Amino acid sequence: MFNKRTRIKELLTSEPQGQTVTVMGWVRTFRNNQFVALNDGSTNANLQVVLELGRFDEELLKRITTSASLKVTGKVIESMGKGQKLEVKADEVEILGDSDSEKYPLQPKKHSLEFLREIAHLRFRTNTFGSVFRIRHSLAFAVHQFFNDKGFVYLHTPIITASDAEGAGEMFRVSTLPFDNPPRKEDGSIDFSEDFFGRATNLTVSGQLEGELGATAFGDIYTFGPTFRAENSNTARHLAEFWMIEPEMAFYDLEDNANLAEEFIQYIIRYIMDKHADDLEFLRQRLLEEEKQKPQNERSELDLIQKLKFVTENKFERITYTEAIDILLQSPAYKKKKFQYDVKWGIDMQSEHERYLVEKHFKKPVIVTNYPKEIKAFYMRQNDDGKTVAAMDILAPGIGEIVGGSQREERMDKLTKRMEEMHVPAEELWWYLDTRRYGTVPHAGFGLGFERMVQFVTGMGNIRDVIAFPRTPKNAEF
Amino acid sequence: MFNKRTRIKELLTSEPQGQTVTVMGWVRTFRNNQFVALNDGSTNANLQVVLELGRFDEELLKRITTSASLKVTGKVIESMGKGQKLEVKADEVEILGDSDSEKYPLQPKKHSLEFLREIAHLRFRTNTFGSVFRIRHSLAFAVHQFFNDKGFVYLHTPIITASDAEGAGEMFRVSTLPFDNPPRKEDGSIDFSEDFFGRATNLTVSGQLEGELGATAFGDIYTFGPTFRAENSNTARHLAEFWMIEPEMAFYDLEDNANLAEEFIQYIIRYIMDKHADDLEFLRQRLLEEEKQKPQNERSELDLIQKLKFVTENKFERITYTEAIDILLQSPAYKKKKFQYDVKWGIDMQSEHERYLVEKHFKKPVIVTNYPKEIKAFYMRQNDDGKTVAAMDILAPGIGEIVGGSQREERMDKLTKRMEEMHVPAEELWWYLDTRRYGTVPHAGFGLGFERMVQFVTGMGNIRDVIAFPRTPKNAEF
Repeated sequence: MFNKRTRIKELLTSEPQGQTVTVMGWVRTFRNNQFVALNDGSTNANLQVVLELGRFDEELLKRITTSASLKVTGKVIESMGKGQKLEVKADEVEILGDSDSEKYPLQPKKHSLEFLREIAHLRFRTNTFGSVFRIRHSLAFAVHQFFNDKGFVYLHTPIITASDAEGAGEMFRVSTLPFDNPPRKEDGSIDFSEDFFGRATNLTVSGQLEGELGATAFGDIYTFGPTFRAENSNTARHLAEFWMIEPEMAFYDLEDNANLAEEFIQYIIRYIMDKHADDLEFLRQRLLEEEKQKPQNERSELDLIQKLKFVTENKFERITYTEAIDILLQSPAYKKKKFQYDVKWGIDMQSEHERYLVEKHFKKPVIVTNYPKEIKAFYMRQNDDGKTVAAMDILAPGIGEIVGGSQREERMDKLTKRMEEMHVPAEELWWYLDTRRYGTVPHAGFGLGFERMVQFVTGMGNIRDVIAFPRTPKNAEF
Repeated sequence: MFNKRTRIKELLTSEPQGQTVTVMGWVRTFRNNQFVALNDGSTNANLQVVLELGRFDEELLKRITTSASLKVTGKVIESMGKGQKLEVKADEVEILGDSDSEKYPLQPKKHSLEFLREIAHLRFRTNTFGSVFRIRHSLAFAVHQFFNDKGFVYLHTPIITASDAEGAGEMFRVSTLPFDNPPRKEDGSIDFSEDFFGRATNLTVSGQLEGELGATAFGDIYTFGPTFRAENSNTARHLAEFWMIEPEMAFYDLEDNANLAEEFIQYIIRYIMDKHADDLEFLRQRLLEEEKQKPQNERSELDLIQKLKFVTENKFERITYTEAIDILLQSPAYKKKKFQYDVKWGIDMQSEHERYLVEKHFKKPVIVTNYPKEIKAFYMRQNDDGKTVAAMDILAPGIGEIVGGSQREERMDKLTKRMEEMHVPAEELWWYLDTRRYGTVPHAGFGLGFERMVQFVTGMGNIRDVIAFPRTPKNAEF
């Protein structure tokens, strides 16, 4: 048995009483042939391991290089040095793996995020990505805990799908047909009946429609899985593969939906503030440093932790789309023609508009409801005004839309009419329509892009820095 | 606000004190124009709603049909009827959604699992699938809780990948190239540099290699995500899309790995036994009924709950592959030529062999270690005997292999030599090899097929009945 080690995170919170421990990890630095800063990934804080001068072999000391891996057994004693309560005085040191520190890509200096993206397989070993991915883990756990505590059923909706849930645009084709010589029908078109699934299939863009099937049996369900967009967008906000959380609740109207979304967002952020004070503090500092590079007027008014408190401590503002448009039309920004895109009732609000509402006007998260039906999906519940649907978007400071949701159209006649108008093929969605046929219920749901939430909580500006191995146009490395 | 309802599961455990509640759900049955059995998916147990004779409109009563959805407000009173502690005496009844019970596909009778697969969008509304998918939910939660409590980091490894982790056979191609007229290189071959990712990409078969990148930074990680096999296997054991859990631990050897896997399996099964006694009891009965259809000698000796206890209460047996082969060679089954496949050192054991070991010989779960290197993957750690690798499979009664894992080869020279022998292209895995270059550590991991585990816990014989919308050859409905 190899693994009898103490994690550095736990060790650092214990009391130094001369107890013997074994720790294992990677060398961050080695000073004066005496002081090893050892990291095992459980925290950014390094353990100071002290090697008594003269006690260890010269050959061994030479092999203690940056990123070499060590097994150290020694006594936990109070530290005389600054910045740490305790240290380990080594009795035994074993080199588990050498590292040629000359060639090691992570040098003990500041690397750009762009460079680190090129070596995404090693960037977890930096403080920034250590903090980001520990927080990502805990956010995911908090998501499950929130819904589990409320009795929601976690549903794994299909990844490979023959339906295009939202008409959400470009999808990735999934196939086992040979490109070189695909089977063709008599008319020359590709014969997908010969494909693995006997039809053309794609990667899912949303689990919502299947989620509704679960909600109309279990009451409340949620999904948490990967979704895909084959959009050729090379931006800091887009991924071709990302994770989404989609709760769907029977017996909910739009207000219930908004209440749940608000409670959910506040819960998972509070969870991180409780469990990851150290990682958040590190990221707060990182962001302050990064912002120093920007001109004064582009810097945030709030630091990272203030921004999170701003969300957890404020009731979200709730306004209708119509009110939002009015506010924009009355705004100094509009009057001074500061918006790049025009404002009028019916537009799909642009990021500049959303940010104005959240960051300038209300200075808190905003839930916008009741959008024009023309800019929303077929399944959203039609309001009595004949013009709007019971949709909601939640806008967050610094990030814009973080949640999109709606009450769903549960009335068969209105739903099928809307599908016809929008050219959604009813025969392909026979199973979806069955939920309206047999004991339909008012229900609602929303989607939250997980990476957007990780960005929000960690303050990382580029979405490629909050997912382990980003998939973007022309990039599927690792 | 619509949603002020009490869940039936909670209500049924409360005390009837004449308190007023609102419940919502779907009608399972309606007897004597008086007694509604209402179900809301939170439990298989129905709530009895009593409609006082003469109090409600005839028109309304007619609409209370199987699967119609109701909102009922009334008083919780002690039940005089058998089989329930309490019932709700209705003050108000609202029909939320009608259902034409003549056309409703789920009639109040026993349906075959095959038929229910055809209407997978409605099968959640049956007791069997209610129990199965509530347990599936809780198993997933228990997985996250187990690893979170131990400080593991949940890593979302990529779904779309350019690498073939295990050479695990047929993969699904992911592409945005047009089949009709794909771009070609001068030599006539398909030009994947024009594809979305600038290269040929597939759906992942395993997150392990990326998991190792995480483990060599964070110490311990796990994945839990969908994986894919484009195998044309139309069996009760195969899915084209399934979910897998893959923990990967730095500073672990094979024994540590086996210890963790055993603890993990026992933990998640105990969790279900604690939280889902009612669903398990229902499934136990279901299985007994099902087994009555089989000839006596094919029935299990243990019922479902006994089988689960058998796993949680027994230390798993640990034997080497070599010992396993010896046991098989000494077995009456072998001597009487009862095995269909031959037994000798070097074979990849067949299901019949594994079941013999677990069900006949040891009568408990078995961890088999140190397999011949020829039948295992390139990344498994080579043992000193030159013939075997530090692999382990865990075999469970009734299901066979439920876990496959190994200590990984952390020695650069041995790893690259093995890759060469097995024609694994080192240049494509440069990032994987970097973990051995820079501070390599002993490490290990395993994979557990989530659906196999759900099958084991629920006793469902066909894997298509434990995933919401199964993907199998010629089938991607819903």
